[in-house]
Amino acid sequence: MTARAELTEKIVRLKIERDLSWKGLTALVNAAGSELSKEYVTAALMGQMPLPKAAAEALGAELDLSDYEVKLMQQPPYRGSLPTAVPTDPLIYRFYELISVYGTTFKALIHEEFGDGIMSAIDFRMNLEREPNNAGDRVAITMSGKFLPYKQY
Amino acid sequence: MTARAELTEKIVRLKIERDLSWKGLTALVNAAGSELSKEYVTAALMGQMPLPKAAAEALGAELDLSDYEVKLMQQPPYRGSLPTAVPTDPLIYRFYELISVYGTTFKALIHEEFGDGIMSAIDFRMNLEREPNNAGDRVAITMSGKFLPYKQY
Amino acid sequence: MTARAELTEKIVRLKIERDLSWKGLTALVNAAGSELSKEYVTAALMGQMPLPKAAAEALGAELDLSDYEVKLMQQPPYRGSLPTAVPTDPLIYRFYELISVYGTTFKALIHEEFGDGIMSAIDFRMNLEREPNNAGDRVAITMSGKFLPYKQY
Amino acid sequence: MTARAELTEKIVRLKIERDLSWKGLTALVNAAGSELSKEYVTAALMGQMPLPKAAAEALGAELDLSDYEVKLMQQPPYRGSLPTAVPTDPLIYRFYELISVYGTTFKALIHEEFGDGIMSAIDFRMNLEREPNNAGDRVAITMSGKFLPYKQY
Amino acid sequence: MTARAELTEKIVRLKIERDLSWKGLTALVNAAGSELSKEYVTAALMGQMPLPKAAAEALGAELDLSDYEVKLMQQPPYRGSLPTAVPTDPLIYRFYELISVYGTTFKALIHEEFGDGIMSAIDFRMNLEREPNNAGDRVAITMSGKFLPYKQY
Amino acid sequence: MTARAELTEKIVRLKIERDLSWKGLTALVNAAGSELSKEYVTAALMGQMPLPKAAAEALGAELDLSDYEVKLMQQPPYRGSLPTAVPTDPLIYRFYELISVYGTTFKALIHEEFGDGIMSAIDFRMNLEREPNNAGDRVAITMSGKFLPYKQY
Amino acid sequence: MTARAELTEKIVRLKIERDLSWKGLTALVNAAGSELSKEYVTAALMGQMPLPKAAAEALGAELDLSDYEVKLMQQPPYRGSLPTAVPTDPLIYRFYELISVYGTTFKALIHEEFGDGIMSAIDFRMNLEREPNNAGDRVAITMSGKFLPYKQY
Amino acid sequence: MTARAELTEKIVRLKIERDLSWKGLTALVNAAGSELSKEYVTAALMGQMPLPKAAAEALGAELDLSDYEVKLMQQPPYRGSLPTAVPTDPLIYRFYELISVYGTTFKALIHEEFGDGIMSAIDFRMNLEREPNNAGDRVAITMSGKFLPYKQY
Amino acid sequence: MTARAELTEKIVRLKIERDLSWKGLTALVNAAGSELSKEYVTAALMGQMPLPKAAAEALGAELDLSDYEVKLMQQPPYRGSLPTAVPTDPLIYRFYELISVYGTTFKALIHEEFGDGIMSAIDFRMNLEREPNNAGDRVAITMSGKFLPYKQY
Amino acid sequence: MTARAELTEKIVRLKIERDLSWKGLTALVNAAGSELSKEYVTAALMGQMPLPKAAAEALGAELDLSDYEVKLMQQPPYRGSLPTAVPTDPLIYRFYELISVYGTTFKALIHEEFGDGIMSAIDFRMNLEREPNNAGDRVAITMSGKFLPYKQY
Repeated sequence: MTARAELTEKIVRLKIERDLSWKGLTALVNAAGSELSKEYVTAALMGQMPLPKAAAEALGAELDLSDYEVKLMQQPPYRGSLPTAVPTDPLIYRFYELISVYGTTFKALIHEEFGDGIMSAIDFRMNLEREPNNAGDRVAITMSGKFLPYKQY
Repeated sequence: MTARAELTEKIVRLKIERDLSWKGLTALVNAAGSELSKEYVTAALMGQMPLPKAAAEALGAELDLSDYEVKLMQQPPYRGSLPTAVPTDPLIYRFYELISVYGTTFKALIHEEFGDGIMSAIDFRMNLEREPNNAGDRVAITMSGKFLPYKQY
Repeated sequence: MTARAELTEKIVRLKIERDLSWKGLTALVNAAGSELSKEYVTAALMGQMPLPKAAAEALGAELDLSDYEVKLMQQPPYRGSLPTAVPTDPLIYRFYELISVYGTTFKALIHEEFGDGIMSAIDFRMNLEREPNNAGDRVAITMSGKFLPYKQY
Repeated sequence: MTARAELTEKIVRLKIERDLSWKGLTALVNAAGSELSKEYVTAALMGQMPLPKAAAEALGAELDLSDYEVKLMQQPPYRGSLPTAVPTDPLIYRFYELISVYGTTFKALIHEEFGDGIMSAIDFRMNLEREPNNAGDRVAITMSGKFLPYKQY
Repeated sequence: MTARAELTEKIVRLKIERDLSWKGLTALVNAAGSELSKEYVTAALMGQMPLPKAAAEALGAELDLSDYEVKLMQQPPYRGSLPTAVPTDPLIYRFYELISVYGTTFKALIHEEFGDGIMSAIDFRMNLEREPNNAGDRVAITMSGKFLPYKQY
Repeated sequence: MTARAELTEKIVRLKIERDLSWKGLTALVNAAGSELSKEYVTAALMGQMPLPKAAAEALGAELDLSDYEVKLMQQPPYRGSLPTAVPTDPLIYRFYELISVYGTTFKALIHEEFGDGIMSAIDFRMNLEREPNNAGDRVAITMSGKFLPYKQY
Repeated sequence: MTARAELTEKIVRLKIERDLSWKGLTALVNAAGSELSKEYVTAALMGQMPLPKAAAEALGAELDLSDYEVKLMQQPPYRGSLPTAVPTDPLIYRFYELISVYGTTFKALIHEEFGDGIMSAIDFRMNLEREPNNAGDRVAITMSGKFLPYKQY
Repeated sequence: MTARAELTEKIVRLKIERDLSWKGLTALVNAAGSELSKEYVTAALMGQMPLPKAAAEALGAELDLSDYEVKLMQQPPYRGSLPTAVPTDPLIYRFYELISVYGTTFKALIHEEFGDGIMSAIDFRMNLEREPNNAGDRVAITMSGKFLPYKQY
Repeated sequence: MTARAELTEKIVRLKIERDLSWKGLTALVNAAGSELSKEYVTAALMGQMPLPKAAAEALGAELDLSDYEVKLMQQPPYRGSLPTAVPTDPLIYRFYELISVYGTTFKALIHEEFGDGIMSAIDFRMNLEREPNNAGDRVAITMSGKFLPYKQY
Repeated sequence: MTARAELTEKIVRLKIERDLSWKGLTALVNAAGSELSKEYVTAALMGQMPLPKAAAEALGAELDLSDYEVKLMQQPPYRGSLPTAVPTDPLIYRFYELISVYGTTFKALIHEEFGDGIMSAIDFRMNLEREPNNAGDRVAITMSGKFLPYKQY
């Protein structure tokens, strides 16, 4: 297990032991003045994004992390949060299924609207909210990624 | 190659030969009164969703499809649009990458907001639009899936 | 090994050491008033389902689990109980084989009866019983999952 | 594509062209006096089970199959109906997911009830029905497989 | 590593340290009156079969196993003794190769002799002996598995 | 599809069309004086073994094979009869399962009896018979492979 | 085989039959005034990049492609030129090996120089030249990809 | 985890704890007079290249490595820095994607320029620099590998 | 199937139909004055090596190949002769097994003798001969590959 | 990690710490009178071959191995020295590549010379030497494996 994965495990354990929430952890991370979203902070605590220095230090102070752990939280991690290429967890699998079903549709519609290129997964933000609905509340996710045109050269 | 895959290939070829667009095909499919989105229609023409009877017939009339092909378009297909478990096409791969990076974040935040359960990929709709931006236009995707709680029994 | 997997291992060891049964553990889990089935409780103890608070505390009291372990039992787990995509254990493999053989049959008959959609694996319950039979007793499994129609939009 | 797969494809095409149903095909197959279930007949027409001679001939007469095709329908097929080890079709995947989540539970409960052994996937029958429900109808599946004890020798 | 795998490792180490043989271990296991074969006992000690209570206790007494270990030896194990789907060890690979080469032959001849069905791997026994031969002694393996006919229903 | 696979497919089709059996085909192949077993001949017709010249010609004469096909039957084939590394057909899978469960047992007992080495899959013969049994007839398979000791050098 | 793959195959065959070179084809493609590099044009003819309209028409005129083929050349293709995830061809494998060996080095040095982010494979150009050398000429490849910083949000 | 992987982990941890950079570590490694590039040294510290004796000793003196660790740094390592055949980290994946997209192009152009052969990944050097650009700085990578012609014999 | 694979298939068929041998084909290929070995020529005819122009033309004249086929034989092929990553054919598998068993030994001994580097598979020749032996003739293979030292830079 | 793998790791560490060579270790192993080659001894120390008793004891005396370790060295190991089916280390990969390129050639030439059968990987010896060459020294490997004819029965 990598050092970063051990840190994630430690944070998740502390979150359970202290009855913290991801939103609560986000507030805590932003205590030093940053304005990171709950999506970014959760991904960071899950070991997929680095935290800015001040944010990492705020987290470290609250959770009694070591200096090394605070520095480790600022490193760009080796990304990839899933233990298998096809995820087994049903919640996560549904997203994989959407790509399996809609992958060629994404491709067709983005090319039609923008031409040859991709939606960036780097210059990207996303938001996850509850969408109230009489027939049962819904998960609403909005994604926004910069269109990057293929360069012809 | 399955019969449905051959039909997809035929439609894509006709689209190219006749300079049609996915939006244009959507209008054509909706000519008989249905109000399907460009996202659903594109997925259907890509072989991932069935078309309602009237819509399939409208399509068949315009593209000179055989009776069998019109009926085939109404069948629930064997879904899965990608030739490999990890997609090789860069545009589609970026979506796979988002799941690889954000999969555990999706899980954490949905459980925090809703409790144990998933976002449905069946009672689901999505929309893909251009989001104008001075630093370069963006691809905006909104997804809405019903939250389904795990039943305890 | 994840914290949850270690907890499963601990519980299985205690079960063996104390000569407990899954039915006995179910009674114990339900001691605080819940009415969970042996199927759900076994899945929970195997690390695949969360336990409600009272049930987890009842279990913890009986098995001397730590506060953290009691809380951990209430978290939605990262699901997936098998070490390989194709299970090697013969008992479990037979179920995989049934899907391999009957998968397209399930699909054909559900679509014929209900139209396009799926059987939910979330709004789902199942029951496993002995079915006495002169030619040798049988395993009787009943599954009930809500039909979820694909939304056309 | 194997000869048997081509035959399946031909039958599925005829079913679509002639607006037949799986229940209708079952009646047709049983016309010569057999009493096969819709589950078995669908699996047979999907290329996963052989038909008895009279049943195959009844089918052949109705669908104008060749003598070779009628004989081919009576051969035990090379079983396995899915193109990938992990099925991509969402309806079929849900069954795979159930095994992934409940596999160790099936194992635990069958061993507790019967001792060491398995549920046969050969001396097996299953039934798929609609289960009416105010909150939305459900898919009800009952499986019955003979328990086979491991022989100690 | 599972608890059962650790127990296998411990037994194999004791076997080496004490210069025991599989036949000797079988005699030891049978000391309490059981009449298990060397094939079954070796498989059990390798973690693939449970031992009956008396046999496990006889083993435990001889090898100074703990009470937990003696109980663990009586549990039906999660079967599958090989670290990879295609075995790398040459001795074991040869058996895999025989299935790769003769798999369709097994299928053809069993169906011809018995009709549709399988040879049980559960109601099964096997025996491995030396077959003296002037051109070099041979390994003689006899397998006997109950024929299980597919039920038509 | 390779030329040899096409020949196998042709022979299997002729076998079905002419109501031949593997034993009957073996007699036919041996008409020119060879004494090949049903196991070897079936494997050969399944594309896994070459036939001797006289045997191939006898077969060709009976089944009206072309000169090329008769010669092709005499070539050592590219062996491997299964479309996937883990076989999906239940009859064949049971043999795979036996290796998964008994692989380390085979290894342990052969090394104990013979020392370091393997059972040859080349200097090998096998026989498959019906073993009558009141509790249900059994499949009896005997395998005999030369022990090959690892050379130390 | 997809329509685009068939077009690639046709172009490669024409290239061989007419003794054309990739540089020659590039000149031909640029005949209508575009200034595409040999790297981009070769990738396009290999089915991995679209050609601009004028370039595709110039190519079509020279190689007698159909109108459909000329339009097909202008479509963003489903990218991925290799038949296996790990390439078997030695020339291509060496590039895979470089990533296997230097992948973590690329990551370390790009993060050190630029911070968290990636080198774009979309806003990317590359050039392949002969580098004369007394000890044997060398292949010189220069790659230039825009650095894309991960957005924190 | 191999001894070499543990050494890499230790060095990476020291680098973070002491706020060192790869360029700084390179200077340190070269303190004893060697002139290794930052690319080679980073690869070595990442466990993919051996260090010359003097360089390893310089490193060991600075980082308080044991004698064994200093010797271990001089061993040719078992190369391969990535945990999966298809890398999940987005930065590294982009390089994999380039091979997937441009693999056949590399092959075509190298064969056209040099004939049959490969670019060596052994007699190879590479350099990674920042390329200033008004539209956003770029990552510039130059690779130089000796062309190795296939020997005809 | 690629054009080159079809050519291989055609040549193998002609070889069988005309009772040619690989040595005979080598003589034929060398008729125009080249001195290629049977190993190189067989690999070329199997689609893994290009033939020089004169050799390809000599072959074409003898086997009535088309001009295109003669040119195709001169192209560096997309190498990789095996349908699966782990070969199923027993003769070829034995070589894979040797690498599995002796891979780390090759590495250890080459590094000890030569230092860090590899044996070239490009500047490589090999020879396969019969080695007479009273205990049974042996296959003798000699391989000679240039040692390529890793460049430190 | 298996006990045997731990022993290999220990021996490799001692080799590095004491500045031993494989040739030196071979001499040491042969001190008690055996005449094993450096190839066999290296493979044994790498955990792929057993050592004879005297040789294992000689090794144990020199390296201060425990009695258990000395006995463990005499056990036939579970063979397979590589962590992945396709090796990532470049030196070892080249051998894999040779099989990928020359596999069908090996098969063709051995069948032509010997008929149907294989080269034994068990009754096998190999030798690895430096072959001096003005254009750069070469690695010379000679392999000798007994030809084993397929038995027809």
